[in-house]
Amino acid sequence: MRLVRLEAPGGLRKLKLVEEDRPEPAAGELLVGIRACSLNFHDGMVAAGKKPCADGRIPLSDGAGEVIAVGEGVDAFKPGDAVVSTYWPNWLAGEATPATKTGELGDDLDGYAREYVCMPWHAFTKAPAGYSHVEAATLACAGVTAWKSLVVCGRVKPGDTVLVLGTGSVSLFALQFAKAAGARVIATSSSEEKQERLGLLGADDVINYRSVADWGLKARDLTDGRGVDHVIEVGGPATLAQSIAACRMGGHIALVGVLTGFAGEVSIPALFSNQIRISGISVGSRTDQEEMIRAINANRLRPVVDRAFPLQEIAGAFSFYESQKHFGKICLEL
Amino acid sequence: MRLVRLEAPGGLRKLKLVEEDRPEPAAGELLVGIRACSLNFHDGMVAAGKKPCADGRIPLSDGAGEVIAVGEGVDAFKPGDAVVSTYWPNWLAGEATPATKTGELGDDLDGYAREYVCMPWHAFTKAPAGYSHVEAATLACAGVTAWKSLVVCGRVKPGDTVLVLGTGSVSLFALQFAKAAGARVIATSSSEEKQERLGLLGADDVINYRSVADWGLKARDLTDGRGVDHVIEVGGPATLAQSIAACRMGGHIALVGVLTGFAGEVSIPALFSNQIRISGISVGSRTDQEEMIRAINANRLRPVVDRAFPLQEIAGAFSFYESQKHFGKICLEL
Amino acid sequence: MRLVRLEAPGGLRKLKLVEEDRPEPAAGELLVGIRACSLNFHDGMVAAGKKPCADGRIPLSDGAGEVIAVGEGVDAFKPGDAVVSTYWPNWLAGEATPATKTGELGDDLDGYAREYVCMPWHAFTKAPAGYSHVEAATLACAGVTAWKSLVVCGRVKPGDTVLVLGTGSVSLFALQFAKAAGARVIATSSSEEKQERLGLLGADDVINYRSVADWGLKARDLTDGRGVDHVIEVGGPATLAQSIAACRMGGHIALVGVLTGFAGEVSIPALFSNQIRISGISVGSRTDQEEMIRAINANRLRPVVDRAFPLQEIAGAFSFYESQKHFGKICLEL
Amino acid sequence: MRLVRLEAPGGLRKLKLVEEDRPEPAAGELLVGIRACSLNFHDGMVAAGKKPCADGRIPLSDGAGEVIAVGEGVDAFKPGDAVVSTYWPNWLAGEATPATKTGELGDDLDGYAREYVCMPWHAFTKAPAGYSHVEAATLACAGVTAWKSLVVCGRVKPGDTVLVLGTGSVSLFALQFAKAAGARVIATSSSEEKQERLGLLGADDVINYRSVADWGLKARDLTDGRGVDHVIEVGGPATLAQSIAACRMGGHIALVGVLTGFAGEVSIPALFSNQIRISGISVGSRTDQEEMIRAINANRLRPVVDRAFPLQEIAGAFSFYESQKHFGKICLEL
Repeated sequence: MRLVRLEAPGGLRKLKLVEEDRPEPAAGELLVGIRACSLNFHDGMVAAGKKPCADGRIPLSDGAGEVIAVGEGVDAFKPGDAVVSTYWPNWLAGEATPATKTGELGDDLDGYAREYVCMPWHAFTKAPAGYSHVEAATLACAGVTAWKSLVVCGRVKPGDTVLVLGTGSVSLFALQFAKAAGARVIATSSSEEKQERLGLLGADDVINYRSVADWGLKARDLTDGRGVDHVIEVGGPATLAQSIAACRMGGHIALVGVLTGFAGEVSIPALFSNQIRISGISVGSRTDQEEMIRAINANRLRPVVDRAFPLQEIAGAFSFYESQKHFGKICLEL
Repeated sequence: MRLVRLEAPGGLRKLKLVEEDRPEPAAGELLVGIRACSLNFHDGMVAAGKKPCADGRIPLSDGAGEVIAVGEGVDAFKPGDAVVSTYWPNWLAGEATPATKTGELGDDLDGYAREYVCMPWHAFTKAPAGYSHVEAATLACAGVTAWKSLVVCGRVKPGDTVLVLGTGSVSLFALQFAKAAGARVIATSSSEEKQERLGLLGADDVINYRSVADWGLKARDLTDGRGVDHVIEVGGPATLAQSIAACRMGGHIALVGVLTGFAGEVSIPALFSNQIRISGISVGSRTDQEEMIRAINANRLRPVVDRAFPLQEIAGAFSFYESQKHFGKICLEL
Repeated sequence: MRLVRLEAPGGLRKLKLVEEDRPEPAAGELLVGIRACSLNFHDGMVAAGKKPCADGRIPLSDGAGEVIAVGEGVDAFKPGDAVVSTYWPNWLAGEATPATKTGELGDDLDGYAREYVCMPWHAFTKAPAGYSHVEAATLACAGVTAWKSLVVCGRVKPGDTVLVLGTGSVSLFALQFAKAAGARVIATSSSEEKQERLGLLGADDVINYRSVADWGLKARDLTDGRGVDHVIEVGGPATLAQSIAACRMGGHIALVGVLTGFAGEVSIPALFSNQIRISGISVGSRTDQEEMIRAINANRLRPVVDRAFPLQEIAGAFSFYESQKHFGKICLEL
Repeated sequence: MRLVRLEAPGGLRKLKLVEEDRPEPAAGELLVGIRACSLNFHDGMVAAGKKPCADGRIPLSDGAGEVIAVGEGVDAFKPGDAVVSTYWPNWLAGEATPATKTGELGDDLDGYAREYVCMPWHAFTKAPAGYSHVEAATLACAGVTAWKSLVVCGRVKPGDTVLVLGTGSVSLFALQFAKAAGARVIATSSSEEKQERLGLLGADDVINYRSVADWGLKARDLTDGRGVDHVIEVGGPATLAQSIAACRMGGHIALVGVLTGFAGEVSIPALFSNQIRISGISVGSRTDQEEMIRAINANRLRPVVDRAFPLQEIAGAFSFYESQKHFGKICLEL
């Protein structure tokens, strides 16, 4: 089988396509034929060598494909099932603990940039009905992060207003889940073309954060001064102050990402005088993924895929990711 | 002004149209011109004399209209505002207590079958944008009960399955709120015509409970055996066992009504072995109503109104209510 | 090793002490030397043949002892660890599902009335610090049921009032956990001696339910008419109406047991007009047990043990259980 | 009656004792004879002129005393009742909104440094049983803040570990409530004498934050590496990083105060990789206060009072507050 390994110390030229033997499933395991993967921020850090990992690591945390065979004692799946990986293979349900939040794929452990993989059955769930493998491969990291932020921690309800920042994949999923949940969505983008696409996805209002420096206050104005109920905060230090300014009293900020840096100054009285609630989010559990897929099925949601590259063009896929010209997920098709 | 008073001991012939002076708002009060009312199960019990109340009581708990004048110190409303009454005028927010759950209108206190009323400002909220007064008059009892059941206590989320029973107004509102929240809805009705109308409102499946005696198990089958996440239980003793049978492990039953009687036998092991959660519901708070109206506005929901009678035909309206031929709310227009 | 098997069709005389080979731990398993077990209501039903199970079943769901050896890949335990079984070996965390609520020990699967057992590592947790094996053996069913009822579902807080019924083990644990959580406890018992012992365990008030038929109203009186916040409902049909009468508006009833029968009539308006919340409880997850043990350690709680019989006197232990003369758990010591 | 007014622009020498007429209660109001007040951080800011307010403002948000007379229509209180003020007189229950979080006493409105006051009845609750007025005066700001942080937002349960910082009044109340709730408490102080007093109040461990710079990691070590469940964060920028370091995965930080400054740098990945939950706290509602008082009564808790000054020595009381030599609340006795 073909697969990709990243040689130390990383960097896109260190992504090597190799040929190895296909594994066999042990008891409790699935043999999955991976048909598609998708790229995430964390994968980009690993591939670029900015987050060190073991020499020869197989990259990519998100994979989807077909069950080829099941090991002894596996009842939950059968050959032919379309499946999608989970981000944390040991986090099945409930709150995360250090024991469940181990084995990050494409980092601590080998990921899914390979034609076949054997994993414990609980490292996968069924894919949504009617999804292509490429579509299914978008869900495990970005989809579950948006779901956990908005539905599990945010407990979004019809009539809430959700603020999503930019057009990264977590933001697009959050937009779609928010609309499915009966919420109103305010989005931000500096590109006219992307603003239009946000509108087509259902955004009720879009703010150009470049021309409107106080976009947090603008979002608040768009709620008649009440403030938004939820912010899906993917930006970090350069956006957090505006996100706080946008929130209603008692609003919820899901702290998801650090696209603009790792540490930033926060006004503490702004948080407590307005009784803001913040949840730090690290993807979610297998149960969260199953519930998200139930929502996708019920609402016939489809992810936004920008394009899919063949496996051997993985370096090109990462370059395209870095260009930030995409709108939706960048995938690999095997 | 014209108004209706119910003479003791009740009965539809005891509903008398009378003429009285218009009141003036005290400090903290609104003078509201009531333009529409709606009928509820509880109002029917009072009007029929099955639930005794004081001689001369003005019936009807749900009213909507226009603010004519505001008393001293009222900031939240101004003349011309379209408003809708709240079911419990003293339950503003948070959990109910005996102190907040007092003053049931059309029962403990005079209700809204009158052209003008003075009430504390917090006994009303703004009406949804673009609603007629008749539409607004449907919300306070049936709408808030459905909202509290499904959203507040049930914490419905996209992908959940909701079972609603029959075509009473609470069930119709629950259907609409469930669809707005991204849930799947299974409804029940014995009438082909009503089944079709349920489908038009968005019900994904409709079961004829007359031809399918085990409609609870049928609902479970429609979820691939998993069971429904929520039941809006309006029936009581004759339906509760089927509702329990329909539930998934850990499912939620909102106990709302007693259309089939007041007391019934319950299998206790069925509840605990399946870890069912039951919430007894008595409408909701003013804050619940405001949040429901926010959801109505965001999703442009419109209530199902069967027809509106003029005030002087209130007895006829109750007779029509008793016939159970309606689909949607029966209203009065003043 | 010595063990007990229950021959079909059950009955105390069908409990047979036999000698078999000691098992060896497979990968992911623990070999535990069971040193103590305890008896629960469900075990009594099985032993008496009232709940049929496979011929030769090893009874008892609750076991405690010492890790003798660990299979390959087990990090969470080491030989010498004092451990206690979990009631549902596959329910690790989060909400129960049909998949996690399988493998009831001493019923679907062989239980712990044996000197050695091999089980997956997650079928045990560490025992509380300083506990004897007999004390540890009391926890898995009765302790976790009380914890789940009061802390997980009930979210008990300081100042709440908790009503516990009788002197069964779930009630005694609930009393202890409630006191540890800063709550007030009202207990019921018809025996003067037991009333005194309830007081020594911390009950603030004890009602003689035999001399006070309306003990639900009496409990309400003891809260100045407000009603209790929580009832740990172990009785079922003969007690539920009084439990409902005891509750405050919005109070919580944990539906745990059926000591007085399986089905009973319930007044539905009593539930919804008082906005009662009911949770059906079936023990809890491994995470619930770990949190309970953390609470036991922090508060140095000790379970109430009536007495421990040797393994070969298991039939006598069940007879004593049926006599209902005990106060606290009945155990076996191996 | 005697009262204190703060002349613009503030400063301790601008606190003037004056004599004015006693007010009369309007409908819905209480006339309360204030017998004691207490000082809080916010009062100190106002008195020192660091937080500007209207000329002649009567300072102090916390008052306790006796009902002298009740206005028309007041049922909840009667003359002779011992009462304590609430921090936000319009926040009765549920979540805060801009409308309920108005009328901060001693700032937007006149406070309680006066012998008599008329306020709407809901601006007071009953005092705990057996409390002196001085004791009761400690509760409204510091007590409710600790309660809301730990019990309402934190949902503390037996066995949790709570980290409290320093010996301010919020921290002392949090220590007492945490112990009442069956939690373990780790406290910090740089003074040996205060460390000893923290131990006497029930702290299980005390860390000297001056000699142990990494006191957050030290707190984590004291939980066997798991991390604490709750931090009551009163410090702000200079302590927040250590508080985050102390937390378990999924731990809760109640953001309460800014004793070390207003803005600080936060590591965003530290928050999301460890899935920390932050709640900004601004005291709490009247219902929160009633529940706290129920907990105080049930557990016979008594607040820590350092000393009480006579009304005319209010400036001296604030000077003593600024010296930071106190342990417990500083009060005024009228």
